[in-house]
Parts: sequence; C-alpha cells; structure tokens
Amino acid sequence: MSDPIFSIRTRARDSLARTGTLRLAHGSVQTPAFVPLATRGAVKTLEPRDVEALGYEMVLGNTFHLHLSPGHEQIAAYGGLGSFMRWERPIITDSGGFQVFSMGHGSVADEIKGRNRGAGAERGSNGSNGSNGAIVAITEEGVRFRSYIDGSLRFMAPETSMEVQAGLHSDIALVFDECTPFHVTRDYTARSTQRTHRWLERCLDWHERHGPADQVVYGIVQGGVEQDLRLESAQTVAASRCGGIAIGGSLGQDKPQMHEVVGWTTAALERSAPQRPRHLLGIGDIDDLLAGVAQGIDTFDCAMPTRLARHGVAIIPDPANRWRVDLAKSRWRGSQEPILDGCPCPACSAGFTRGYIHYAAKAGETTGPRLLTLHNLSFIARLMADLRAAIDAHRLAEVVAAFNAGAAPGTLSL
Amino acid sequence: MSDPIFSIRTRARDSLARTGTLRLAHGSVQTPAFVPLATRGAVKTLEPRDVEALGYEMVLGNTFHLHLSPGHEQIAAYGGLGSFMRWERPIITDSGGFQVFSMGHGSVADEIKGRNRGAGAERGSNGSNGSNGAIVAITEEGVRFRSYIDGSLRFMAPETSMEVQAGLHSDIALVFDECTPFHVTRDYTARSTQRTHRWLERCLDWHERHGPADQVVYGIVQGGVEQDLRLESAQTVAASRCGGIAIGGSLGQDKPQMHEVVGWTTAALERSAPQRPRHLLGIGDIDDLLAGVAQGIDTFDCAMPTRLARHGVAIIPDPANRWRVDLAKSRWRGSQEPILDGCPCPACSAGFTRGYIHYAAKAGETTGPRLLTLHNLSFIARLMADLRAAIDAHRLAEVVAAFNAGAAPGTLSL
Repeated sequence: MSDPIFSIRTRARDSLARTGTLRLAHGSVQTPAFVPLATRGAVKTLEPRDVEALGYEMVLGNTFHLHLSPGHEQIAAYGGLGSFMRWERPIITDSGGFQVFSMGHGSVADEIKGRNRGAGAERGSNGSNGSNGAIVAITEEGVRFRSYIDGSLRFMAPETSMEVQAGLHSDIALVFDECTPFHVTRDYTARSTQRTHRWLERCLDWHERHGPADQVVYGIVQGGVEQDLRLESAQTVAASRCGGIAIGGSLGQDKPQMHEVVGWTTAALERSAPQRPRHLLGIGDIDDLLAGVAQGIDTFDCAMPTRLARHGVAIIPDPANRWRVDLAKSRWRGSQEPILDGCPCPACSAGFTRGYIHYAAKAGETTGPRLLTLHNLSFIARLMADLRAAIDAHRLAEVVAAFNAGAAPGTLSL
Repeated sequence: MSDPIFSIRTRARDSLARTGTLRLAHGSVQTPAFVPLATRGAVKTLEPRDVEALGYEMVLGNTFHLHLSPGHEQIAAYGGLGSFMRWERPIITDSGGFQVFSMGHGSVADEIKGRNRGAGAERGSNGSNGSNGAIVAITEEGVRFRSYIDGSLRFMAPETSMEVQAGLHSDIALVFDECTPFHVTRDYTARSTQRTHRWLERCLDWHERHGPADQVVYGIVQGGVEQDLRLESAQTVAASRCGGIAIGGSLGQDKPQMHEVVGWTTAALERSAPQRPRHLLGIGDIDDLLAGVAQGIDTFDCAMPTRLARHGVAIIPDPANRWRVDLAKSRWRGSQEPILDGCPCPACSAGFTRGYIHYAAKAGETTGPRLLTLHNLSFIARLMADLRAAIDAHRLAEVVAAFNAGAAPGTLSL
C-alpha cells in the first residue's frame, strides 16, 4: 500500500493527543479507538452485528489461539478471519508473542498488566486460563512450546507468526516479539529487546516477500521499564519499514510507572515517527484510556470490559472505585437500581436492574454476561467518541478532568 | 376477567386444527403458537428483544426453579416475572408439578418425554441436570422435598404453587399436578389422576380468593396412556372453572402412542370445552408440532430448540434425520456450507457457516450456541406462522405433508 494508512485530523495543542482515521483493507477506523477482543474468533457472548451496533470499527483476533485451533490454513480457506467470523470490518491480529512468552515467564504477580496469567492469556488480562502449555526452548530462531490444547510440540518463529497472520488476512498484523516481564534483570530486558528488533526485521522481510499487499505490519516497541531501552527501541522500530507502531512488554509495577513508560515511548515516537499510528497493547482501564489518549495513543485493546462482564462487573462512572461495580456481590440481590441510570446501552435502555444481573450471574444464565458485555463495551465506545470530539474541540484536558471527576460518557456537551 | 380470553378465527374442516387469538393481560398471542422456555427468567443466550424480533409473543417461566431462586417474593417486588426479566409480553408459568415429581419418579428411560431427567428438568427435556434434589414425601396435602440448590427442606402444595405463580404474576398459571410417568401401574395412574383433580379444585379455590384477577388458570389433563382415564380427566378439567386446558403427564413410550394419547384428549376436549385454549406441555419436536396442530393444540412449549442449540444441533428441513443436523460432529470441521441455505434467521443471513458453528462449539464460545438458538427458534417461529396461514387457507393437510416431505418454513406460497 503506497497510500498512507493513517491521516491525522486534529493535533491537541497541549498534549500529544490527536484524532485521525486509519484507512485499512476492510474499512476505516476513527481514532483514538478502543478495539474489543475477538481472541478466538468471537467477541465473547456477542455477534458481530452487536459489536458494530455499539459503534466499534475494528476487533482484535489472536494469532496464537487461532493458530492452535482451528488453524490458520482452515481460516485462510474461508478467505480470512473476517470471513470466518462474519466481521466485515478491519481486524488487528496480535502476533502470538505475548501468549508464547507468558507460558515461559509464568506468573508476574506484581506487574501492572497481569496477575497469574498462564499460557494463552490475553495482553491485559487479569486471570489465568488454567492452560497447561509450556515453553520448551527459546532460541534466536524462535520458540518451541507445547500446545495447551493437545500437548503437541509446536514451533513459532517470526516467520511463522507472519505466515499465520497472512492466513488470517487481518488488516493489521503485529510483528513477533518477546514480551519481557517486569521481574527480569535490565540485562535480560536489553538482550530480549535486541532480539525483538532482529525479529522485527525478519517479520518485515517475510511480509515483504509473502504477506498480503493490503495487510499493514505494526512493529512493537519493547524495552521494559528502562527509559534508554524504550527510547532506543522506539527509534529502531520507527526507523523500520513498519506501517504502524505498537507498544508492548512490561509497563511497570503500578499505574504511575505505566503512564511514565508510555509517555517516554510516545514522546520518542512523536519525534521519530509522528505520522504513524500507535497502538497500546493490552491496556484498557478507564484511567489508562484517558491517560493514553492524552499521550498520543491512537488505538487500544484490552480484555477488561468483556472479561469483567463475564464476572458480573459493570463499568460505571465511579473513579473512586476504578469505574467498577461488582454486581455479583450479594448486596445487589433484589436491587431494583438500574445498572447505570440514563445509560443508552441495550441493557440499561431495556430496563435491566442490578438485581436481575446479580441473579443471572448466580443462576449461570449467559444472558447476564451478554447484557454486561453490551453495557461495558457501550460505555467505552461512548467514552472514546467523547474523547475524539474533545480533541477536535481542543477541550481534551477539561473533558479528561470531567471523566476523572465522575462524568458519564455521552453526558458532556461536546 | 369476564371477556373470553380465546377467540377462534378459523376451524379446519378435516381436522381439529384451528387458528385463534389468546388475549392475555400483557398482550395477544396468535395461535397455534410455540412458546420458548425462559425457565429461570431468561431464554438461554438471548435477550427479550431477540425473542420478540423472532416473532414470539409468549415465553414460559418455571415456578419450581424461580421459587427456589430468586424466590417469588423477590420477583413480586419487581412487579412480576415480566418486569424482572424485561419481557413485556405474555408469560405462562409451569406449575412446578413436573419438576417436583420428576425428582421422585426418577429416570423414565423408555418414556417419550424424557431420558434420565433429574429434578429440575423441564417438561420435554432430554437430559439430566445433575441436580440432587429429592422427594421426601407425597401426601394428599402436597409434596415435601429437598431443594437442589441448598438441600433445604421445602414443601409445595397446590396452594403454594398458585401463590408462587401469583407472585410471578404470569398471564397464564398452570394448576399443580402430579405428573405420572409411563412406568407406573394403571392403578397408580388412576389414583394419581384423581388426586390431580382434587388439587385442580384447590388451585382454583385459592386463585379465586387470592390470585391476580388478570391471571388465567389452566387445568391439566392427566391419565397417562389409559384412554378411559384421559377421557375422564378431560371431562373433569373441562367441567372445572379453569380458563384453559393443558395436557400433561406421560404420553407414552413412542411417537405413535403419544399422538394417540393427544388425539383422545383433544377429541374429548373438542366435545366438552371447544372454546377453551389447549396447551400441550413439554412437546415440541417438529413432527409433534405438525401432528399436534392438526389435533387441535393451540400452544406448545419445549426445551428442544434451545437445548439442542446449546449442544450444537441445528434444526433443518430434513425429516429423515428428525429435522436435525449435529454440527458438533467432526465432519463439519472447516465446512463452508451455510447452516441452512436461504434461511432468513440472524445467523444464516449473516453468513455463518456450519464450520464456524462447529468451531465455536468446540472452542466454548457462547456466540455459537446463541447463533444456533436464534436459528432454531427462527425455524420454529416460521413453521408456526406457516401452519397458521395454512389453517386459515384450509390447506393444512397439504402443508403438513409438504413439511413432512422436507419443505422449509417460509418457502411455501401461503
């Protein structure tokens, strides 16, 4: 593709925030945008028409899971992941690096991006999936591991990941990276980051020769929590032929550190690759979206809104409680309170109460998680729409402050 | 209610079939109609707006399950089951008799209506739910049993069932009956049927004094597979003050016997209560719907379409295979065949393939069961609409023959 895939409409005057349009093979994405997870080829509990009706323009599929089952050859025979899962808009595919390496690095208890995540976890997930995959060997060539599905020995190299993603025919492919955790030494992080850079070149080489012409490849900035490594990685990725840039790896042990690491990285990217789109991997808490947008992130993905829904947690404008209310708790038994008063989502507008959601969660009725998934994703879609409008109106700081003070998306005059 | 709740529009000339309109507290139901199950206050995997969009006008909630959790007092505080589950159209509630007695009678392996159904099964279900409830005692007064939820000792009498159903505030309440299985003696069936008749009077007495004025009570015809007992029961129920009549209990050990038992009963009801609506409990296989409509049944409920969907089975116009195709079978791996070519349901019209449904079932993605639930319920909604049109056009026999020869609903010119 010789046309630029990303055009910036408005740049904020007092931050790195910007609005823009990603123009991809299967359509456009207005940014900043949140990207819901369709990890295994479905946004859990929803149909594609539901996701579209909520206002989403792109979903994220997972290379690792889809490689193991049903396999990219099968999906390629359908014409790609979009045809297979009947999502006719853009798709971004994660490279599989995070999943492969989370098997080896194991539990990363104090890390911001996950607790006890086993193999097969999503970036930004907060729970183990009880899988039993395991890394057998990490070499310069790639990673040998056992499938969590059938225990078979598998090998994934940068070229494998790109080949799988070519078969999935996503609009955006991510390069295969080593996702270094927080608890390793600076020396390990430095060597790992160097290897990720060599793998970046191998991914781009493979894609140039064999990849779909209408697929964009994003490089991934690593470097852990080391400022110099992050800056070096940002420069290396920016200097490569990649069409967009993702930020991955360990982002620290708490939110201030995460925001600092992201800030270093986007500041560096603003100097070296100001026109290229930036994706923040596996991050999507409300406060992180607010901070990330102001730091110049264009797209985000995270398991949070869909996973919380399956555990009975609704997203509400309550910053003091991390924008969450746990409707599985017994205090909501019999409650006639709406999930969120005035919320226009399909669940709230139909009049479902916190008491019904509580009951459905206890009764194991999947209608409950579905209703909360619709609510949570609707909340975030409206939040992102508000942030885009705020940037265009040069009112981002004021609007972020309003959200941080408990404003509900869609209620500000923008 | 002094107005008749049921008006008959067209009576077939060559069968007992009829079309009509049930006028209930929360709206009208065009008959003959299939009634999807919302056993525990949700049509599994769907929202109420989905059920409505498929063309359904009534759902069935279960007194036994909702009594145990969340309890009818809690639901009454919401204004009834419809307000609680956000279904603003008519609801029929099963009495709990079937569930209570299925705990005591246990497995009924050779019976047409169920295999290995444990406590808490639905009428017409085909599997145990692994519950551990148990009957402690059956007396003239009622039934003492242990809750499958917490093991607590519970008592259900005819009056209890009516009180619970008053709290649920359904449009149609069913009287509390003993659902006698197939394997008992004629003598047991006779005594049980007599008791059901005495309980009928107790239910009607309670409802007259305490029940909601806008709630209709249906009596239940029992009598097992004994023609004289069925006729006596039909006459007894017809002679009572009930507003409608349901057919319950053992309907035999195979389909021909079931159709015979239903035929005796509706023929008797046609003589003694020709104007009152008739509901066939727990029956809903396609061939049974076709036979039942011709025998003058007005409404049906059954777990079949929703339960099959959760097991990966799609309903298709294939009479030789019981109108079923099991998409969980490995032969559908990678299949690009549509679920049903030309089907206008949300799943088929979106282009979902048998291979995707197979994959989703294997991957445990609830989007798969949801898509099949939409497909199966859509199939049956269109079938019933066709049958209504066929009766009105005096072409029922021809249309039933076409369906039995493999015609798809919605494809006949009616």
